[in-house]
Amino acid sequence: MDAISRLLTPRSVAVIGASADPNKTAGRPVAYLRKHGFAGAIYPVNPKVERIGDLTCHPDIHSMPEVPDVAIVLLGAERAHLAVRDLAARGCAAAIVLASGYTETGEEGARRQKQLVEAAGTMRILGPNTIGLVNLTDSIVLSATGALEMDDFPVGSIGVVSQSGGILGSLLSRAAARGIGLSKLISTSNEVDLELADFIDHLADDPATKVIALYVETVRHPANFRAACLKAARAGKPVVAFKIGRSEAGAKAAVSHTGAMAGADRMYDALFKQVGAIRAKRFADLLDVPAALATGRRLRGRRVAILTSTGGAGTLVSDDLGVAGFETPPPDAATANALRALQTGSEAVLNRNPIDVTLAGLRPDLLRGAIRSLLASPGYDALVIIVGSSSLAQPELMAGAIQDCLPETDKPVLAYVSPHAPDIGALLTRRGVPAFADAESCTAALDGMLRVERFHAQGDAAPAADVATGALPRGSLDEAQAKQLFGRFGVACAAERIVHTPAQAPAAAQALGGRVVLKILSSQITHKSDVGGVAVGLTPQTIADRLVQMAADVEAKSGVRPDAFLVQEMVDGGNELILGMHRDALGTAVLLGMGGVTAELFKDTTMRLLPTHGGLTRGEALAMAQELRTWPLLDGFRGRPKADVDALVDTIVAFSNMVAQLGERLLEAEINPVFVLPQGQGVRAADGVAVLADAP
Amino acid sequence: MDAISRLLTPRSVAVIGASADPNKTAGRPVAYLRKHGFAGAIYPVNPKVERIGDLTCHPDIHSMPEVPDVAIVLLGAERAHLAVRDLAARGCAAAIVLASGYTETGEEGARRQKQLVEAAGTMRILGPNTIGLVNLTDSIVLSATGALEMDDFPVGSIGVVSQSGGILGSLLSRAAARGIGLSKLISTSNEVDLELADFIDHLADDPATKVIALYVETVRHPANFRAACLKAARAGKPVVAFKIGRSEAGAKAAVSHTGAMAGADRMYDALFKQVGAIRAKRFADLLDVPAALATGRRLRGRRVAILTSTGGAGTLVSDDLGVAGFETPPPDAATANALRALQTGSEAVLNRNPIDVTLAGLRPDLLRGAIRSLLASPGYDALVIIVGSSSLAQPELMAGAIQDCLPETDKPVLAYVSPHAPDIGALLTRRGVPAFADAESCTAALDGMLRVERFHAQGDAAPAADVATGALPRGSLDEAQAKQLFGRFGVACAAERIVHTPAQAPAAAQALGGRVVLKILSSQITHKSDVGGVAVGLTPQTIADRLVQMAADVEAKSGVRPDAFLVQEMVDGGNELILGMHRDALGTAVLLGMGGVTAELFKDTTMRLLPTHGGLTRGEALAMAQELRTWPLLDGFRGRPKADVDALVDTIVAFSNMVAQLGERLLEAEINPVFVLPQGQGVRAADGVAVLADAP
Repeated sequence: MDAISRLLTPRSVAVIGASADPNKTAGRPVAYLRKHGFAGAIYPVNPKVERIGDLTCHPDIHSMPEVPDVAIVLLGAERAHLAVRDLAARGCAAAIVLASGYTETGEEGARRQKQLVEAAGTMRILGPNTIGLVNLTDSIVLSATGALEMDDFPVGSIGVVSQSGGILGSLLSRAAARGIGLSKLISTSNEVDLELADFIDHLADDPATKVIALYVETVRHPANFRAACLKAARAGKPVVAFKIGRSEAGAKAAVSHTGAMAGADRMYDALFKQVGAIRAKRFADLLDVPAALATGRRLRGRRVAILTSTGGAGTLVSDDLGVAGFETPPPDAATANALRALQTGSEAVLNRNPIDVTLAGLRPDLLRGAIRSLLASPGYDALVIIVGSSSLAQPELMAGAIQDCLPETDKPVLAYVSPHAPDIGALLTRRGVPAFADAESCTAALDGMLRVERFHAQGDAAPAADVATGALPRGSLDEAQAKQLFGRFGVACAAERIVHTPAQAPAAAQALGGRVVLKILSSQITHKSDVGGVAVGLTPQTIADRLVQMAADVEAKSGVRPDAFLVQEMVDGGNELILGMHRDALGTAVLLGMGGVTAELFKDTTMRLLPTHGGLTRGEALAMAQELRTWPLLDGFRGRPKADVDALVDTIVAFSNMVAQLGERLLEAEINPVFVLPQGQGVRAADGVAVLADAP
Repeated sequence: MDAISRLLTPRSVAVIGASADPNKTAGRPVAYLRKHGFAGAIYPVNPKVERIGDLTCHPDIHSMPEVPDVAIVLLGAERAHLAVRDLAARGCAAAIVLASGYTETGEEGARRQKQLVEAAGTMRILGPNTIGLVNLTDSIVLSATGALEMDDFPVGSIGVVSQSGGILGSLLSRAAARGIGLSKLISTSNEVDLELADFIDHLADDPATKVIALYVETVRHPANFRAACLKAARAGKPVVAFKIGRSEAGAKAAVSHTGAMAGADRMYDALFKQVGAIRAKRFADLLDVPAALATGRRLRGRRVAILTSTGGAGTLVSDDLGVAGFETPPPDAATANALRALQTGSEAVLNRNPIDVTLAGLRPDLLRGAIRSLLASPGYDALVIIVGSSSLAQPELMAGAIQDCLPETDKPVLAYVSPHAPDIGALLTRRGVPAFADAESCTAALDGMLRVERFHAQGDAAPAADVATGALPRGSLDEAQAKQLFGRFGVACAAERIVHTPAQAPAAAQALGGRVVLKILSSQITHKSDVGGVAVGLTPQTIADRLVQMAADVEAKSGVRPDAFLVQEMVDGGNELILGMHRDALGTAVLLGMGGVTAELFKDTTMRLLPTHGGLTRGEALAMAQELRTWPLLDGFRGRPKADVDALVDTIVAFSNMVAQLGERLLEAEINPVFVLPQGQGVRAADGVAVLADAP
């Protein structure tokens, strides 16, 4: 067994600093283990105690009769590292360090944390500042926290990993009340060693786990996280993640909380999307979406039947589904006939959706018939059953009727409980019909199911062969150098010539087609327009005079007399886009944005993180363009010519390959704008910046 | 007492079709009245029954010894109108008609509904298809539905009016479980007579009601609704409305449900905003926001203190508040000192927000001190207290500590309950601290409080004096006629001349400044560009030839030879906007939108409903422009010249006055585009359409 298996399913547990008083925090781990019938050996260690119940308490770690799989360290931060050192020396697989007072408290804490890591050596550490873990599958509690303990755990197939202990306790108590079953609960907190990715990787192999739910404050090692999520996806185990730090306030609070370094929130969006992790929008989604996924049922389309015996709530669910793009079509003729044959009563509404069976909804036999018809209908991909106040009288009968129909298809069946009736919700959920008290939760659950179905885990594509760049310039490149760099990687740039005197300009303009742009060329002046350094629509006849004037203007405004100018072909028509990069703690991403001031106001941009090696695939590049809200502008909106999307995709891929190959040597790069011309006419990078570090 | 007061607080109640069996639906109204100790007279009416308990049962309506204030009619749709006729004849104030089978079921039902209205005469009707009402203030249940009955009603100050009975029951059971107190519950359903507006108007005067919550499927009489909401606003009683029909699916379902005519959902947005009604985004907000408003506490800014003893949940709340634009600044120095003086322990975090008092959060004396300091701090406008799992041991002590501090300010104090602990949530809510299990609910509640504070009820402004229009043309106007019409109401239009021959064109171009646009003038051809009917940048030299060519092009493409042309001054620079109108069941609105294809993709438009008489005020017109997401384009974004917003405001007001004055005679009107030039240069309506009906 590997160390993480031994941590989660230990054959023996040491409790360092155990107390004989089960009412004290230090007395709880032993009490919890025994209460839930832990079958392995328990070794309390405490020099001041001789016995804890019928267990011998050992004076120190060296006195334990065997090497335990795992140790719970109850000592404070000032002494925990000593116990960790001794446990490591004995060959223990993993230690759970509960103490707080590490990086989350400042410099002195960071020093302690370093000491702890050194003491552990190759032994694995969960924590510090963790509340431990619960293996619900095997009834093993490794914690001293009341919030991770209950008499009857809700056992099921959702594995939960959280970077906050308090949140883990909250999820456990909420899941238990809702009838949502869990397999493992793990609080990783400071993650000096074991982190989210380790447990995702492990749970992907855990037969008891079907869905993985994550509470994320930060991702410390993005490559590990990516690999673990892709492994889970290939194993058919969806990952659902709630990530804090969507606002600056939240990001700050999260940093304070566990000392985590935050990446830009939009980078997390990109990361989650690329590894097929469903991002929970609301905290409640972190249970709601996994609860639906844990049924193993599959949503293949957007058409939802709503079965109700009460009008208002059906409308509520239908309305919210509609806002999210789901469809609620009326039953097809065959289905309506089948429903009619059930004789559900004269007031039943069978030609509309919500399908209102009125009081027949209270009769299990009729309910069973209606559910069967709707699940069998080729017109529906899922069913939502509305539980009204009148359905509450016989919850068992109703739950049984619904449950009977589940094996007939694998389409999702969810319930919306309209009155306050948590018990019937929990009953239905336990019987395989996830029940929700919010219409928005039904929608979120179905949306999550659809996203899982539509993600196909891809391995990273083989990276493109390196481009021979020759010697690269250093520092801040001027516009011409930047575009030369982009061009070497395959980016199509506007044709241009460098001139130094008015006399050279007309010939250059002539060679570039007669209608040109004139710009100053300088690596010092970045905002050329602001100093009068750009003129468009010039001809061989007008360009020399204009150059003289421009030189004077720029000198007057900037104090610098320009000695080089760029004469560039005039690019007309097409859409202006921006292609750039962003690098932070989470990795390096390529950004695509629509140009122009209006699109800028709407922040119409999209990003993709680069894989560990190489650039983006053509498929990813196309998906980026299609994600822009202004994509229709490229796609023939209102009779406009379709843009050369193929050439745009080539450009994105080429740019991404450059960013990947140059790695940390490339400090900044942006093409702004790149003109995307009509189909067949390609693209033209018209301006850009690049900053290179010295070669490593 | 007026009829609605007699309906809600009757001195006597008749029950038409009462049964002696309290287990039957028809037996419930009498049973419910007696159970809650109704002090007035109860008159059951049923020819087949002699006594119900100790009450005499009357054979018919004429036999009742006095005229009841209100009657509950339990008869089916085929007979209810007969009872209504008799009740009206005796002078009963109001009848509650429970039967379904009216307009919501189709034509035959619509006929029955008409019959019912005729039978009622001047007697007021609640329903039909209603589940009745509950006056919680006075413990009076007028219903036959179990969902509106409970042993202990949650009495409080929120009046709820719902167009769905099922939803009303759901709200009652959810409110009761949450400790949220209600004053009146009214199901209006088909609204043949009494409707939302009647009850809003009544509750605005009801001393027991402080907040009005509405479940809306449709607003049948917008003018009444507007007047009632404005009355409630003036009375300091916020209205919170959840409106179904945000999606097409939901709108269809709502129409099916109560036979209601739906207006466009965005018109409801405008209506609610204009009358100061808070639109609940989620159904849950319909209890959450009123629960916060019912405390009577006032939010004066966006700065929120979060007090916690558990890190994760504080972060969750802080993050969500941040996304919604709230601020969570750290305590100022004086507040931090005051907190430190409480000696909350070495691990307390007092220089950040969330303010983490760790275990001190469990000691009521320290909690009291911390709450006092935060409420007294001039740096905070509100306080959210996080209830963690460790706070649950002594809920009474904690609730008491919090409650003690409430009288010291009127700043809002809310609670977020992190574990599943509905009982402590209800306890806190009952003690005046609304408690929520979702971070998003805290945010919604605070957001609602802020909106109430920022709305100042305005009466409708005095309408502008009518413009003397002279004789108006009829039908579809051509472009020149349309702009002449707009011009009469004060809209500044681009200067232009009509020409019929090539020879007339150069002089016209010369008179208009030399650089002009040429367009065909036709009321038949609406898409001029599509048939080659627009040319820009012409001069007196080029215009004659271009006109000849245009005539030929248009004839070739459209089959119509144009015989008139518009020569128009060329308007350069400025922003293109669109000004239009929309009329539906909810009223008439003026629309403002940013022009250009990108803004169109983002649907960057805003609308305002016209008041009952007259057009929009300058303040409303300015607010519309400022609501555009592209407002910065008009406001000097990135060094652009500021636009002539004053002139734009004049134009919006003038256009709205035209729409108001012409009323139903104006079938369509749109200015597209109107150029808004830089400050001091005004606007120019450059093109437009108008369709007029025949004069009434």
